[in-house]
Amino acid sequence: MLESLLPALQSASAASPASAGPFLLSLVIIFVASKTGGEIAVRLKQPAVLGELLAGVLVGGSALGLVDPTSPVLHLLAEVGVVLLLFEIGLESDLAELVHVGRKALSVAVVGMLVPFLLGYFVSEFFLPEGTPGLVNIFVGASMTATSIGISAAVLSGLGYLGKAEGKIVLGAAVVDDVLGVVLLSVVSELASGGTLDLFTILRIAGTSIGFLVAAVVVGNLAMPLFLRLVRSLQTRGDLIIASLGFAFSLAVVAEFAGSAAIIGAFAAGLVLAKTDKRHDIDEKLRPVTDVFLPVFFITVGASVDLSLLMQKEALLFATVLTFAAVVGKLVSGLAARGGGVNRLAVGAGMVPRGEVGLVFASVGVGAGVLTGATHTGVIIMVLLSTFIGPILLNRTLRKAEQVEEPVGTPETA
Amino acid sequence: MLESLLPALQSASAASPASAGPFLLSLVIIFVASKTGGEIAVRLKQPAVLGELLAGVLVGGSALGLVDPTSPVLHLLAEVGVVLLLFEIGLESDLAELVHVGRKALSVAVVGMLVPFLLGYFVSEFFLPEGTPGLVNIFVGASMTATSIGISAAVLSGLGYLGKAEGKIVLGAAVVDDVLGVVLLSVVSELASGGTLDLFTILRIAGTSIGFLVAAVVVGNLAMPLFLRLVRSLQTRGDLIIASLGFAFSLAVVAEFAGSAAIIGAFAAGLVLAKTDKRHDIDEKLRPVTDVFLPVFFITVGASVDLSLLMQKEALLFATVLTFAAVVGKLVSGLAARGGGVNRLAVGAGMVPRGEVGLVFASVGVGAGVLTGATHTGVIIMVLLSTFIGPILLNRTLRKAEQVEEPVGTPETA
Repeated sequence: MLESLLPALQSASAASPASAGPFLLSLVIIFVASKTGGEIAVRLKQPAVLGELLAGVLVGGSALGLVDPTSPVLHLLAEVGVVLLLFEIGLESDLAELVHVGRKALSVAVVGMLVPFLLGYFVSEFFLPEGTPGLVNIFVGASMTATSIGISAAVLSGLGYLGKAEGKIVLGAAVVDDVLGVVLLSVVSELASGGTLDLFTILRIAGTSIGFLVAAVVVGNLAMPLFLRLVRSLQTRGDLIIASLGFAFSLAVVAEFAGSAAIIGAFAAGLVLAKTDKRHDIDEKLRPVTDVFLPVFFITVGASVDLSLLMQKEALLFATVLTFAAVVGKLVSGLAARGGGVNRLAVGAGMVPRGEVGLVFASVGVGAGVLTGATHTGVIIMVLLSTFIGPILLNRTLRKAEQVEEPVGTPETA
Repeated sequence: MLESLLPALQSASAASPASAGPFLLSLVIIFVASKTGGEIAVRLKQPAVLGELLAGVLVGGSALGLVDPTSPVLHLLAEVGVVLLLFEIGLESDLAELVHVGRKALSVAVVGMLVPFLLGYFVSEFFLPEGTPGLVNIFVGASMTATSIGISAAVLSGLGYLGKAEGKIVLGAAVVDDVLGVVLLSVVSELASGGTLDLFTILRIAGTSIGFLVAAVVVGNLAMPLFLRLVRSLQTRGDLIIASLGFAFSLAVVAEFAGSAAIIGAFAAGLVLAKTDKRHDIDEKLRPVTDVFLPVFFITVGASVDLSLLMQKEALLFATVLTFAAVVGKLVSGLAARGGGVNRLAVGAGMVPRGEVGLVFASVGVGAGVLTGATHTGVIIMVLLSTFIGPILLNRTLRKAEQVEEPVGTPETA
């Protein structure tokens, strides 16, 4: 019924320029798919995100074809969803604690970028046909370094691990990874466009990205009294949520303009607002808004999987080896976590999903004309399988640890 | 600074396909403009909507050029904003009472369509150059019949009049107007495309539109126990808001597919959910979401005003006379309100703003190639001026009535 309704509504939309029907129908499909997938996953003791992603695959282009992941509108709403998620995570974080964990997370992030980059480079070198330019290997390596803070945070949050050591290290490492990833992305893009890469340029790009998070939090804290006085003086409906989102989106825009990523800015905005007395009011208003936008992200990420690519034999071999390397490479990074009593396997598992960040790397490679055919296929499959495998591994390692702890008696609860 | 930032971000967005910066910047501008305009208006004892619309003109294409009202993404978000507003209004309405008022409102709606249609037809006949086809007069007349339920509801809500007799009659008449308007729109569209219009076709279109609201409420009520059982069984985050919006958007899609309008479906969904025990929970979650989407509607409506059109002399004369006729035509409709103690002038004033519905009529006329040049200019100015004048008149008439009542002693408060 849906498939006959869709074209009918689309032609109706062509007749009337103000017709929102097809767009609303997409949202309904996204809502139904994400809730159905999420609820089934939860009942199977799996993270809801996994069910949402699989539901996305099911309604996506290569299966039912109900959701078009290339739609620019859905793409932007998905981006807003991730920005809102990071804002919310920032709002629920404790800055002082994050800085404390950040030092521990740094080693995880660096190892979690270096090992996957080298593994990706060499898998590409050995498995791709002879004569493949070295730039391809660099791009494959780079796309292996990403960590999807969105996916991991959602899984950790769903399992109640956001506040525990493992959750904080993964989150901190993912943030560091995002910052370093943006630097790497800028560097490889400049390589692809044939630009010269001197040390000064690399340092400038790196300095801008890393410096932004610090600057945003410092400036944001200075501007906070002004912001709070403004909010208190507003009299019209929706003052708090609009002021908060205005602040978060502004920092996101500035972050992107400064050469960092929008999600880093939103995260910084959350960290700053978390220290005010409006924290809980904002969180309460923010949650329903995030709940509306975030399913668009998960469903479109899932919907972008092209299942027909799995039929190509050599692409499949390359993809399988690359995925194996991607999982192992990030699991290794967990070993770099310092501090006693930390579940290092869980930290590594939390770093596995590439998610939206990996997809960004892949799309930049495609845009630059470097990633084509089987190579592109392999990278996309690696990104998606790691995104599926990551949450499963994380779930398993955390639950196993809990089962081991239980019979001994859990001293942490005392 | 914003103007230099915008192109920079747009080129950044062209480089990276996942860049949400320019879109987030548009949202920040929309949030800042709508809150600034709204807050200033409230301090000047005017409805917030008026300030938001004027702020929209200021940031729009013909002034600062910060918001592009032709952006497809913003257009869809604005549509979602109106759909959410109507859902919320339905949720806060009492169906039994609306049916009761509906009978009173019917006469207001019919007079409020008939008189403006005739006035528009004859103004067009006399003021447009000789040889103008009769179809043009019919389209001008049709575009005069619209009533913007969104604008009027926001003004009435802001003044605390949604629950009083005047508010209910205007809302009821606006709903009837929307239903009748969709019928008229279908009829004139069929005329414009050269189709034959027999009585059977007109009755079919009319029957579908009017029948939808009744059918939606009846079927919705039957499906309610199932919906509530479903909501109670959900375990993942955001279950209530997603289930409610899924229901509202579904009815909106069905309404549009059935030949009615999306907002009518959303309104029906609100009416149905208003009778459940989840009413207040849904309302609480819905409000922040509406608060985020609705400013996009008001700002883009304002931003679509092209101030340079006001420089064309003959267009200005036609527009002025048409606006005068538009205001008088709807004020007359208030006289048709039955029942003692009703402020008939306020009811008429509440019917004046054409808002988004008038803009839909105009855009259909443009699409059909019927409304061009000065005629189009005149209709757009009429739609926008009526949208500005309506709230001012409504505000004045209601406040005047209150001032007259006060010295006598207000028996209503006892």
